[in-house]
Amino acid sequence: MRATVMYAAGDVRVENVPDASLVEPTDALVRVTHACICGSDLWPYKTMERSDAGRQMGHEAIGIVEDVGADVRTLKQGDLVVMPFAFSDGTCVFCHEGLQTSCVHGGFFGTEDVAGAQAEAVRVPQADGTLVVLPVDEDDALMPSLLTLSDVMGTGHHAAVAGHVGPGKTAAVVGDGAVGLCGVIAAKRLGAEQIIILGRHPDRIALAREFGATDVVSERGEEAIERVRDLTDGFGVHSVLECVGLEQSELTAIEIARPGGAVGRVGVPQDETMPASQPAFYNNVSVSGGPAPVRAYIEELLPDILEGQIEPGRVLDRVIGLDEAPDGYRAMNDREAIKVMIES
Amino acid sequence: MRATVMYAAGDVRVENVPDASLVEPTDALVRVTHACICGSDLWPYKTMERSDAGRQMGHEAIGIVEDVGADVRTLKQGDLVVMPFAFSDGTCVFCHEGLQTSCVHGGFFGTEDVAGAQAEAVRVPQADGTLVVLPVDEDDALMPSLLTLSDVMGTGHHAAVAGHVGPGKTAAVVGDGAVGLCGVIAAKRLGAEQIIILGRHPDRIALAREFGATDVVSERGEEAIERVRDLTDGFGVHSVLECVGLEQSELTAIEIARPGGAVGRVGVPQDETMPASQPAFYNNVSVSGGPAPVRAYIEELLPDILEGQIEPGRVLDRVIGLDEAPDGYRAMNDREAIKVMIES
Repeated sequence: MRATVMYAAGDVRVENVPDASLVEPTDALVRVTHACICGSDLWPYKTMERSDAGRQMGHEAIGIVEDVGADVRTLKQGDLVVMPFAFSDGTCVFCHEGLQTSCVHGGFFGTEDVAGAQAEAVRVPQADGTLVVLPVDEDDALMPSLLTLSDVMGTGHHAAVAGHVGPGKTAAVVGDGAVGLCGVIAAKRLGAEQIIILGRHPDRIALAREFGATDVVSERGEEAIERVRDLTDGFGVHSVLECVGLEQSELTAIEIARPGGAVGRVGVPQDETMPASQPAFYNNVSVSGGPAPVRAYIEELLPDILEGQIEPGRVLDRVIGLDEAPDGYRAMNDREAIKVMIES
Repeated sequence: MRATVMYAAGDVRVENVPDASLVEPTDALVRVTHACICGSDLWPYKTMERSDAGRQMGHEAIGIVEDVGADVRTLKQGDLVVMPFAFSDGTCVFCHEGLQTSCVHGGFFGTEDVAGAQAEAVRVPQADGTLVVLPVDEDDALMPSLLTLSDVMGTGHHAAVAGHVGPGKTAAVVGDGAVGLCGVIAAKRLGAEQIIILGRHPDRIALAREFGATDVVSERGEEAIERVRDLTDGFGVHSVLECVGLEQSELTAIEIARPGGAVGRVGVPQDETMPASQPAFYNNVSVSGGPAPVRAYIEELLPDILEGQIEPGRVLDRVIGLDEAPDGYRAMNDREAIKVMIES
């Protein structure tokens, strides 16, 4: 089958690889109809050391179940399913707590153990716990928005939950990538009254405003912090959604939180240490978040997508075929596209 | 009047200073009957650069109201009051949210602006918002426990609240100082089922066990982390109370939290950055806490002290007169005493 393989920073190829197939009796084999390139795929795209074996990429997908292992109970051939970026058994203590990204039998796609979904097909471990059947056809117009349940919409929602967004609160979203934009949707959906987006790309800012952002801060560093304080009676916001993961963005996130506020981190941290430990402490600002348990959020978010209440699929502003994946990476890296959808 | 003045690391003197007096109409003048030396006073005791003016120390006290300013409404001469380590107006947005340590008209004792309470008397700004009248006499046997409402009991409680301690949860307390020991009391009081104390001083550990600690981990670093995991099915604890503030203790705190767990920090952080940003992220461990709004907790904790449900005063294991304060600092710094009470 055809699959996307990364060999080094900037070196992504679509190649023939061995067909995906069932390995464990709890697996499902899924023919991928829709996949994505993720902002987090750009970290290895910028930094990966050369690997002879390469890494089969992709962790977001919708597809059709082609086959299931002997122990799979809830899925059958022909089901249209959405695949969270982490697989999980659905039965362990962490799955029961809604933290499927820490499932004791779980793991991630696009790793050494489990191949990626930017491919014609993908093996899905712990299929019963992982996959969610969608009540639509594969050519439904909602497909882009449903695809964001794999990662970015659930991740933006997680940032909002970890940032304690609630009715009447003020929120700021650090980062105007696909996750940040979904964070704006999530903050509005959870009732935030004022939503400040920190970003500087006109097309993304425009979309953020359509999603519900009330204010835009395009400055950086100290100036950005001052601007947010000016917009919030000098105090800062109740909730910050940190959707970048760099030292500077984490520092900004903590500094723009008001005393007693909360930072919800979903940008993968690129440093061992977190800055601004003392400001966070002296202001009693909580810092939470991490890999989003998007599986836990699908039941909550799916109805809003089906009813057209939210349209996170609008962040997928470029659609390509699988063989164009290398150019998709380039386009996202060059900020030509917010987020790329791969259609088969 | 006599007061405790620190001039440099290791140089604490009890001297004659100008009498404390009313300055603002919202002030109260309090004759100090009981004060403490705080673990946080030991940071300047170890590191303070020489100052000709010196710093008048102390932020924990019980005393008798001697005089009040024209705008004070709720206090009168002769009231026995407990003084939280931060003063606060009781009316601002943060006070209403229960975060009096961020009061917009608030501040701290023992600073350049407001003198300390290890003295014969102390000026208390924002007296109506700050002071709480105690329903006992100044010679009541509960005085040591009531005095801990100034800081350490409220601070231990804050660590437990920020660490999301709740019924049936597992908790770990990093640090066996007075605050850590009060953290054990707080964790038990909030229903924790297993309470692991990380510390290595036999007298303190013994007290921790009496307060409700179920397990003791005396190892450090990686070994301590392994031991806590062994005690908790390999997962770590739901709640960590970080009561030290050093890089190593913060690292340990994050590493012993189970996925989805919470670290409540009350140890004043000594570094600009926080370690283990990535482990906290990948395990969705929240890090909260800061200066405890002990004023907010007095109403909740006072009845338990009056009824003898909790006995935090037992951490005050040495009682001295004001003139012995320099030796009190030495004794705490040398770990001869857990916490020193100064009686007038």
